[in-house]
Amino acid sequence: MVRKMQTRIKMWSAIFLVVAIMIGIAMIPQLNQYGTEVGMAAAENEFMYEKAIHILVMLLMGFGFLMMFAKKYGYTSITATFLVVALSIPLYMLIRPYLWGPSADISIANISMLLFAEFAAASLLIAIGGPLGRIKTPQYLLIGLLFTPLYAINEWVLFSGGLIPSGAFLDTAGSVMIHAFGAYFSLGMITMLTTKKERDTNVETSRTSNKFAMLGSAALWIFWPSFCSALVAVNQIPVVAINTILALCGSTLSTYVFSILIRGKIEIADIANASLAGGVAIGATVANITPGWSMLIGLLAGAISVVGYTLIQPRLQKATGGVDTCGVHNLHGMPGVLGGIAALGLVASPLWQLTGTGLSVILALGAGLVVGFIASKLGGKEAPYDDLEEFELS
Amino acid sequence: MVRKMQTRIKMWSAIFLVVAIMIGIAMIPQLNQYGTEVGMAAAENEFMYEKAIHILVMLLMGFGFLMMFAKKYGYTSITATFLVVALSIPLYMLIRPYLWGPSADISIANISMLLFAEFAAASLLIAIGGPLGRIKTPQYLLIGLLFTPLYAINEWVLFSGGLIPSGAFLDTAGSVMIHAFGAYFSLGMITMLTTKKERDTNVETSRTSNKFAMLGSAALWIFWPSFCSALVAVNQIPVVAINTILALCGSTLSTYVFSILIRGKIEIADIANASLAGGVAIGATVANITPGWSMLIGLLAGAISVVGYTLIQPRLQKATGGVDTCGVHNLHGMPGVLGGIAALGLVASPLWQLTGTGLSVILALGAGLVVGFIASKLGGKEAPYDDLEEFELS
Amino acid sequence: MVRKMQTRIKMWSAIFLVVAIMIGIAMIPQLNQYGTEVGMAAAENEFMYEKAIHILVMLLMGFGFLMMFAKKYGYTSITATFLVVALSIPLYMLIRPYLWGPSADISIANISMLLFAEFAAASLLIAIGGPLGRIKTPQYLLIGLLFTPLYAINEWVLFSGGLIPSGAFLDTAGSVMIHAFGAYFSLGMITMLTTKKERDTNVETSRTSNKFAMLGSAALWIFWPSFCSALVAVNQIPVVAINTILALCGSTLSTYVFSILIRGKIEIADIANASLAGGVAIGATVANITPGWSMLIGLLAGAISVVGYTLIQPRLQKATGGVDTCGVHNLHGMPGVLGGIAALGLVASPLWQLTGTGLSVILALGAGLVVGFIASKLGGKEAPYDDLEEFELS
Repeated sequence: MVRKMQTRIKMWSAIFLVVAIMIGIAMIPQLNQYGTEVGMAAAENEFMYEKAIHILVMLLMGFGFLMMFAKKYGYTSITATFLVVALSIPLYMLIRPYLWGPSADISIANISMLLFAEFAAASLLIAIGGPLGRIKTPQYLLIGLLFTPLYAINEWVLFSGGLIPSGAFLDTAGSVMIHAFGAYFSLGMITMLTTKKERDTNVETSRTSNKFAMLGSAALWIFWPSFCSALVAVNQIPVVAINTILALCGSTLSTYVFSILIRGKIEIADIANASLAGGVAIGATVANITPGWSMLIGLLAGAISVVGYTLIQPRLQKATGGVDTCGVHNLHGMPGVLGGIAALGLVASPLWQLTGTGLSVILALGAGLVVGFIASKLGGKEAPYDDLEEFELS
Repeated sequence: MVRKMQTRIKMWSAIFLVVAIMIGIAMIPQLNQYGTEVGMAAAENEFMYEKAIHILVMLLMGFGFLMMFAKKYGYTSITATFLVVALSIPLYMLIRPYLWGPSADISIANISMLLFAEFAAASLLIAIGGPLGRIKTPQYLLIGLLFTPLYAINEWVLFSGGLIPSGAFLDTAGSVMIHAFGAYFSLGMITMLTTKKERDTNVETSRTSNKFAMLGSAALWIFWPSFCSALVAVNQIPVVAINTILALCGSTLSTYVFSILIRGKIEIADIANASLAGGVAIGATVANITPGWSMLIGLLAGAISVVGYTLIQPRLQKATGGVDTCGVHNLHGMPGVLGGIAALGLVASPLWQLTGTGLSVILALGAGLVVGFIASKLGGKEAPYDDLEEFELS
Repeated sequence: MVRKMQTRIKMWSAIFLVVAIMIGIAMIPQLNQYGTEVGMAAAENEFMYEKAIHILVMLLMGFGFLMMFAKKYGYTSITATFLVVALSIPLYMLIRPYLWGPSADISIANISMLLFAEFAAASLLIAIGGPLGRIKTPQYLLIGLLFTPLYAINEWVLFSGGLIPSGAFLDTAGSVMIHAFGAYFSLGMITMLTTKKERDTNVETSRTSNKFAMLGSAALWIFWPSFCSALVAVNQIPVVAINTILALCGSTLSTYVFSILIRGKIEIADIANASLAGGVAIGATVANITPGWSMLIGLLAGAISVVGYTLIQPRLQKATGGVDTCGVHNLHGMPGVLGGIAALGLVASPLWQLTGTGLSVILALGAGLVVGFIASKLGGKEAPYDDLEEFELS
């Protein structure tokens, strides 16, 4: 039995090796295809480069360590993070030109290609936060393999001008496209990826595992301004950065207040997660708003997120049967939709804004259901929230 | 009794929510007032942006994790860090224009406003290092609320030209304005915020909590060159960065040596803290000095800091009765004053340099005494250096 | 006995204090000698500055925490990291002008000087990874003191044009010069620095110590693009960054696959280390290759590294008797040589490429043997892989 499982795991890992080699080979002609002509000024490229590195901090250190709160599941959390990032970045770079056509601006000679790939990886990391702890490493990779093209399609729908008129949907830093899409994809998946036993098993945490989670949270907080300003015009960067920071200040303060008001005591998981809700919610409007409003949106987003963790999540779990391990719906789902809605007052046509937001949520839920169903066919873990099955433990 | 305490905590947290909302609302007209005209070149703004993010690493990951050395108090250390940063940055941005008048250079359309706010937050984080572990979260916020305007006033005194002639006081990276001010403010506070019981309670540490502290220390070391070069002219950045690194190299080496010479064995808390003393001490002169001298100042600062931790702190504690949990006097107080004095040979009028340094120390001590007295009225913790009272613990 | 040992430790630490002071004094005339004239444009300098800070993250947080996997040896790992970085950076800056002659481009007024010094520190950190846990802090410093000039000489041999024609040896980001040199120096040292008892003592790890190691690994992964692009022309940075990231994606994926294929289960130490092998191997060719090939080189490097950890290291240890604590030969040695060989198809004369690679390995092994012999004269530790002897433990 154990032997058979090991054979299957080895077979799956060999399959992913072949996939990775094929991605590498398929990429070889890419440079020749688009040339190395640089589509933007060197300085502009360099500014984007800095932000691309900052976003890498958010992906590997931010998400990776935030998901380490599960005491016995830390090895898998960080390994899964490494793996889905390592898969989705090259995969997205390979797919994008087929959807958008070749472009000198978004090519491997410009950092913007890398930035778009990192956004895809961020959304994927949000998506795996829901079933975290209940699936095996090949399942994380399979989800990554299926999620990346679906994300790319939704991105294309929102911004290519093919369906929604170009510029009609305001979502500068991806409140909807990155956060809400990842979160509702996750909600879709977990209805397929939660068993009765898992519903009754609590995630064990410890003082140390929660400190690692706070490290991830701090990494996300710190570099969020670069996430929001990565693609804006250079002269907009200062206001975008200040708006982002004020939104995060707002959600940090209201997280503390509502954690105490609702629970009586502070819950460290609220601080680690809901403090970031301001960054999620400000994403859509961050380049079109003033600092005072940013702080207020942040204050509201933090409050909504804590209400999500304390009051909504238990009810939602009862209703859908799916366990959302990281509470991605509270941190990325609701605040992401709030961001999309906050933009209603700033766009030419509120209808397109609502369409884009609603469409992303529906597409994400549907795609998540299908991908969750497929992933469930690979079989589940024996012991949820435990590294034991897949790792050599000393 | 517990219920009554909880009601008070809830009331206080609600008050801070109102304060935060008021700050947000008060900020709304700010953008209209100063416009979005960018006061400096885009590239210069972008270079400052990078440094602003680096300083955020120092605030949240640096100070936040350095203060996690207390084994049972890690949740509060990092939460208090998040809270005072989230409060002081918007508060400073609101206050500054009232003291200095509107300016296109220092507005929300330029990153320099954010940098000044981050410096205020850094000084505040130093200030809470003294009473750390003996006060409650509302007290950290109250201290932040009172500290921020007092810091802004001292900054105005030193650099506005109103009292000390403009340019007469040399303190490029805040040896005095940021470090010494925060540390002596802290010394003032702790004489009001230490009880007999707390004097007899030792702070428990563990191998793990000290490793988190070393992470904070590494974060501060790494990004210190950005702290020092944030506001210097672009062509001065290389020398300032190299000077800062050499000062840190010096203090790291002398910390190791003096830790062994005085104690016989290495104390990891010395390595975590005193290694950084070179960065504190070089702050005043960093743009006016050569690399060799920087290393020598760093060597001296590390030695002074270890002498502080081993020989001076116990005596000072006996004399004043105040417990300095993080030893901020050893890391930021004495090395900060050393930095102010090291500038004596480089300024036109040593008298103004001494006046600025002395005035900052006296203002800080006095203000700290008053704020400590006010904060003490909110009541103390039952068990010092323990998260138990305020956090849900798993 | 203990007293005598303490006296020796104090004497050694005092010697290193004198050395540090002498370095500081010797540096004083340096600024006067080369002036403060900036040898490159301000913007270019600033881009390099960002990379210099990123590489500092790799040095102190990356290597420092990656080496913390030894459960009982974490204090020494991070302290040794701090110390050798603090010693080698100023020492290299002092030495370099004597080898290369004064230059406006590489002076303390330009960040490139700092970058070269950081590369030396990186190679030194690789070198101490082999004997890690079996030597005392003064030995780490002594090794640093001897390694730095030897590294500088090998760098001069490879790139000054004195021996190998200028430009004939391709090693843009130091696959050979930094990684292979440090690793084979380490192999040389450990044959002199491993006792029978140490050969039979296993390094204890724990879930927590391995999580700190993963933090170091993440820090290295994230900032590796800056390591590779630090010295390339500004318009090459995008391709270099994307190539580096794809190489790391490749090695991350193949590490996972080969860890499972060879061991049956995932070993977290493989993930922490071998995932980075793509960054090592891409170093030589990173500016002359396309993204697809980068991913394939990364896939190969990850596989070789895991084979190193699982199959080669035990045999090598039996053959040479030296214990390679961090497995630097698997992460930096073989992948570094792979990088040098991968460049064969891209250089004008493959012979010079082979000469440079072979010469570096031989020089490193020889120098490592001598330095290991000298360091062994300072005496060894009582208990390997334990902080006990040198640190005050709470």
